[in-house]
Amino acid sequence: MTSLARNERSGHDTADLSPSVAARHASRTGMVHHTAGVANGFVQGNLAILPEKLAGAFHRFCQLNPKPCPIIGMSDVGDPRIPALGIDLDIRTDLPRYRVWRDGEIVEEPTDIMAHWRDDLVAFVLGCSFSFEEALLEEGLPIRHIERDVRVPMFRTNIACSPAGPFAGPMVVTMRPFKPADAIRAVQITSRFPSVHGAPVHIGLPEQIGIADLAKPDYGDPVPVEADEIPVFWACGVTPQSVIQAAKVPFAITHAPGLMLVTDLRNKALAVL
Amino acid sequence: MTSLARNERSGHDTADLSPSVAARHASRTGMVHHTAGVANGFVQGNLAILPEKLAGAFHRFCQLNPKPCPIIGMSDVGDPRIPALGIDLDIRTDLPRYRVWRDGEIVEEPTDIMAHWRDDLVAFVLGCSFSFEEALLEEGLPIRHIERDVRVPMFRTNIACSPAGPFAGPMVVTMRPFKPADAIRAVQITSRFPSVHGAPVHIGLPEQIGIADLAKPDYGDPVPVEADEIPVFWACGVTPQSVIQAAKVPFAITHAPGLMLVTDLRNKALAVL
Repeated sequence: MTSLARNERSGHDTADLSPSVAARHASRTGMVHHTAGVANGFVQGNLAILPEKLAGAFHRFCQLNPKPCPIIGMSDVGDPRIPALGIDLDIRTDLPRYRVWRDGEIVEEPTDIMAHWRDDLVAFVLGCSFSFEEALLEEGLPIRHIERDVRVPMFRTNIACSPAGPFAGPMVVTMRPFKPADAIRAVQITSRFPSVHGAPVHIGLPEQIGIADLAKPDYGDPVPVEADEIPVFWACGVTPQSVIQAAKVPFAITHAPGLMLVTDLRNKALAVL
Repeated sequence: MTSLARNERSGHDTADLSPSVAARHASRTGMVHHTAGVANGFVQGNLAILPEKLAGAFHRFCQLNPKPCPIIGMSDVGDPRIPALGIDLDIRTDLPRYRVWRDGEIVEEPTDIMAHWRDDLVAFVLGCSFSFEEALLEEGLPIRHIERDVRVPMFRTNIACSPAGPFAGPMVVTMRPFKPADAIRAVQITSRFPSVHGAPVHIGLPEQIGIADLAKPDYGDPVPVEADEIPVFWACGVTPQSVIQAAKVPFAITHAPGLMLVTDLRNKALAVL
């Protein structure tokens, strides 16, 4: 799709676009290398696309495990649009990069999925920690991995998700170290955002949730936890991807890590209080 | 005051009294040995009475340190009544036991202060952790010192209160151990009750706030912290008493530990959310 075609479709010039729409349009060119810090203030989402035959079980899995899998939008069967997240949103083109999974293996990482789209696919968009991180930063709480410009450290835990159909497995969590008073504040702040993982699932004792070494995350990058800090753990949107992989389903599509869907929802609008 | 006189004053028979009014009337006889578990559902308060000359500075101290010193009621100068906390409440008789302080020393622990009352005294009633403990218990969170039927462990910290006039000193905190997920829940629940100490002030690292040994509280009784638990610390209403003692003010009256003022306020009514 050319730049001209894009602008014709959205009906106005790029200069007039909101940051979220502009981010999706830029994603269509495949020229976006990460979405962290893109379109600040707008909700970004994890993506999971499954055939209708598996979508019911996956939907049930999300329903049973709302902390790692908070659904913020989903498509009709075979429909690439999710108007609630963006009027002109096309789930086939509007993420910078995708992962195509077959039998639990990544077979391709394309910048659009036009060639993979099918009439039986259902797209799920799940909340992402970028939203609550924005709230933490606005309250003046330092976030170690952002300060160091690395990926958030993520760990597989011994907390079992509630299974549904073929979807089962451990919860994946992110870890952010805080001084104790900030940790308490972080619980309060993130409790206001249940649709983007909400309050932490654990605090202080990593070994209790099966994490042997904080310096060796299963995904992302390690960050130090200082002597005057405690590690705080939130349910992570990598959980559904990990579960889709473990289920070895014949076909699925997800976003590529760090390359999320930028929606027109405002982070602040997600606050329940 | 005889039992008859009490009932005449309150204008109805003891059998008709609300639990909080009945508790205050029982306190007038000096036959109440602790108020924990008395008149469940009703707010209990810490008491501090100071001469008008010092009351301004103490009021400012409370204003500056709302977590340890949340004011839920105060009297006019020389007036022993606090109608907002109980229509027939008489602060001179309605606590089971008092402490009379002179120059930082306890000189008497009477069951009423009729003989000590003066026209220049101001009474302050401060929120107490009994209120949030009720909320924690109602949510199914176990509270160690209640399970063991001992006093909550309290510690002097290295957290300096903001000083006002002669009133200065470290914050005193209570400690309750919780499993990590319960600790997160406890932050959420107690955050709803800012007028009774509110959210914890610290979590997880006692040495950071100057507590060398959790087994050796400065007040109250020790309770064990198990390997799968973290200690959670709340600002404590003993702080003002500790500060009054350290200020060595010529004259003050407080409640005796564990023998609080029972008010007609409902704990649930204190929830801000």
